[in-house]
Amino acid sequence: MKNFFNLTDNELLIEYQKLLENYNEYKSLNLNLNMSRGKPCSEQLDLSTGLLNVLSTKEDCINKDGIDCRNYGINDGLPEMKEFISELTGIDKENFIVGGNSSLSMMFDTISYFITHGSSGSIPWGKGGKIKFLCPSPGYDRHFAISEFFGMEMIEIPMKKDGPDMDLIEKHVSEDSSVKGIWCVPKYSNPQGITYSDEVVKRFAKLKPAAKDFKIIWDNAYFVHDLTDEETPLLNIIDECKKYGNEELPIVFYSTSKITFPGAGVAFMACLGQNLKDFKKMYSIKTVGFDKLNQLRHIKFLKNKATLLNYMKKHREILNIKFKIVIDCLNKEFKDNPILRWNNPKGGYFVSVDTDLKCAKRVVELCKELGVVLTGAGATYPYKKDRNDTNIRLAPTFLSENELKTAIKLFCLCVKLAFIEKRIKNQNKKEV
Amino acid sequence: MKNFFNLTDNELLIEYQKLLENYNEYKSLNLNLNMSRGKPCSEQLDLSTGLLNVLSTKEDCINKDGIDCRNYGINDGLPEMKEFISELTGIDKENFIVGGNSSLSMMFDTISYFITHGSSGSIPWGKGGKIKFLCPSPGYDRHFAISEFFGMEMIEIPMKKDGPDMDLIEKHVSEDSSVKGIWCVPKYSNPQGITYSDEVVKRFAKLKPAAKDFKIIWDNAYFVHDLTDEETPLLNIIDECKKYGNEELPIVFYSTSKITFPGAGVAFMACLGQNLKDFKKMYSIKTVGFDKLNQLRHIKFLKNKATLLNYMKKHREILNIKFKIVIDCLNKEFKDNPILRWNNPKGGYFVSVDTDLKCAKRVVELCKELGVVLTGAGATYPYKKDRNDTNIRLAPTFLSENELKTAIKLFCLCVKLAFIEKRIKNQNKKEV
Repeated sequence: MKNFFNLTDNELLIEYQKLLENYNEYKSLNLNLNMSRGKPCSEQLDLSTGLLNVLSTKEDCINKDGIDCRNYGINDGLPEMKEFISELTGIDKENFIVGGNSSLSMMFDTISYFITHGSSGSIPWGKGGKIKFLCPSPGYDRHFAISEFFGMEMIEIPMKKDGPDMDLIEKHVSEDSSVKGIWCVPKYSNPQGITYSDEVVKRFAKLKPAAKDFKIIWDNAYFVHDLTDEETPLLNIIDECKKYGNEELPIVFYSTSKITFPGAGVAFMACLGQNLKDFKKMYSIKTVGFDKLNQLRHIKFLKNKATLLNYMKKHREILNIKFKIVIDCLNKEFKDNPILRWNNPKGGYFVSVDTDLKCAKRVVELCKELGVVLTGAGATYPYKKDRNDTNIRLAPTFLSENELKTAIKLFCLCVKLAFIEKRIKNQNKKEV
Repeated sequence: MKNFFNLTDNELLIEYQKLLENYNEYKSLNLNLNMSRGKPCSEQLDLSTGLLNVLSTKEDCINKDGIDCRNYGINDGLPEMKEFISELTGIDKENFIVGGNSSLSMMFDTISYFITHGSSGSIPWGKGGKIKFLCPSPGYDRHFAISEFFGMEMIEIPMKKDGPDMDLIEKHVSEDSSVKGIWCVPKYSNPQGITYSDEVVKRFAKLKPAAKDFKIIWDNAYFVHDLTDEETPLLNIIDECKKYGNEELPIVFYSTSKITFPGAGVAFMACLGQNLKDFKKMYSIKTVGFDKLNQLRHIKFLKNKATLLNYMKKHREILNIKFKIVIDCLNKEFKDNPILRWNNPKGGYFVSVDTDLKCAKRVVELCKELGVVLTGAGATYPYKKDRNDTNIRLAPTFLSENELKTAIKLFCLCVKLAFIEKRIKNQNKKEV
């Protein structure tokens, strides 16, 4: 394998021509390979076929307490679902609201509530001045989209190996009362697969915000989504916050979207004190109740922590093959040609890569012309702007193994092309 | 049957003693009969048992266009669901967003959106001054609860036989730019069962609001919920508004909550122009998509307009018996003793009654002591305040026939007791 950094300009140009020929051959194939979103593949969805049939008679629709789940009622979720999520997370069942099929939707509701009603006696966020939100980046584009939608100013927080830059967070949070919250994916973060260390979680719990209505949006989307047999531990943010009298800080979210069916799962939120009262009140006004039949389906199918964790192993078997294809290919192509860096995640849904020269956008563009669709470059940053233009999020889960092999091979090809283009451009600039 | 208006005070007191003995006998029975909410009964829910089983294999989960409904995607609803609701309502399928299990939730989202984002270039409702909302009353308590939750000032609009008082509405809407909207249940209204006449709908469509962001929230909750074989026609508000260049006025809502399962149905909203763009954008930020499997279940089970209308006949057969029990009992007890007035609805879920003297609260209280739970007196008015204290909403659908017979008999008993109590109290006042 050639190391591009050791090649002369001429040698690079020759390499470029060869790669381009290869590229053009593929271009004529009209491929359509989508690696843009963290979507489970069909084989994963097939694991939950049983979910479709657990409720088939009217008797099946009665819950353990005799509640007819077909009818109205039970605003904050079935008791057995609260027990289930409590066993999984170690958070008291009384602190949960069990929702519909979208945890994102509950996060949106949460932010929207603070905008219209405020929190802890503060004036509503929408009635005061500018609202700032901290955004560990790269991060989840849909979080940032919610902040943007509500007109917040997003402040980028760099990610370190054990979580976001806590020095910077502490500074912003303690000094600026217009900083009202932070988006976190604390376990197997999207896209880098980073799990927050105990020290990071403890520093979150000890925050002393200038804004008394500061909130930690703790989107624990990948809480049981390990890719190895060894679970990466994460401290319970709620317990930690309680220790420091900060129980109003965290609002945590979970979902079964990547456990059962992404389009028809069940979402959960948990919080304490006034937050819990506020959101129970809000949901009692907003709906007569979430889909209890789907909640009942889930508890009958997933049963308890032991069966769930066993079930997640089956996901892992499917996912491991996919992630191995990507990592093996990246290793093969770039181990001795370090024009790309990547993570090797122990959980979650993504491989995050960084191009050596600032050419992520160009890589995505080149891929697109081949029919390989990647997450837009920059999408993992606030306002979709990656100032360094280096980060790309790869989502290996949805494609079939063969499709993925092709897609990742072509991705590597495009990385090389983009690198050489940029290198030559840079050289020309210097000469000018 | 004695006409209380023709009795002397002494005769009334004798009557009261007799009724009270009867009342006390029932009190010892510890009954628990709930007539408070418009909940379908088990027999109605059983009609939809087939809905549980229409999706049982993974192949069943693929929609007509090959979309795997188990996975993420399709933010604004399945195309076949849009076609279905379009056939039923006469509104173009392109104007629909198909949601989750709660139309109330979509109404809340709608109001919340206007509070945070405004409409048609106006400043967000939450950033300006006082927001006023018109509330045809008696009306749906959950509508009024949303207005109250968002701190709006609610203005009571009396209901007439063919809809709300349009003279008053036109006056408020044209003169006061802080009047931003109105809650409507235009067909078989909750609780009176009134359907807006063509003239009323046309006057809505011709409104010339002082507020350019004025909205008509058109909750067509009972659009196929006839109680007779003769459907009561209702003009299409969207078509009418278009005629007068008022396409941004109406936002309409439908749901299958009282067609299939109240706890697990499908909700719909429709609107035009900028409203549609705004809400599609909002939902694309708020969720990756609503529960498509439940949407697919519904279309496979309900099929089309002809099958749905046939299906609604089965509901009607069950409901007619219940409504007949109530109306027959009211007729028997009060036809010749006009201390109570009531409607005889041709659709919807309620019988609305008005006590002759201002004693609705006392009736509800007396019923409660017997274990007969009614909707709180006043609940059908803004701020739960019925200034006349006359209106009570009866919900006959949920109880079994025998339970209902007992409940309504006891209700009549309480009406009589409350009337005599009030009459005597009034007499005493006069004497003082």
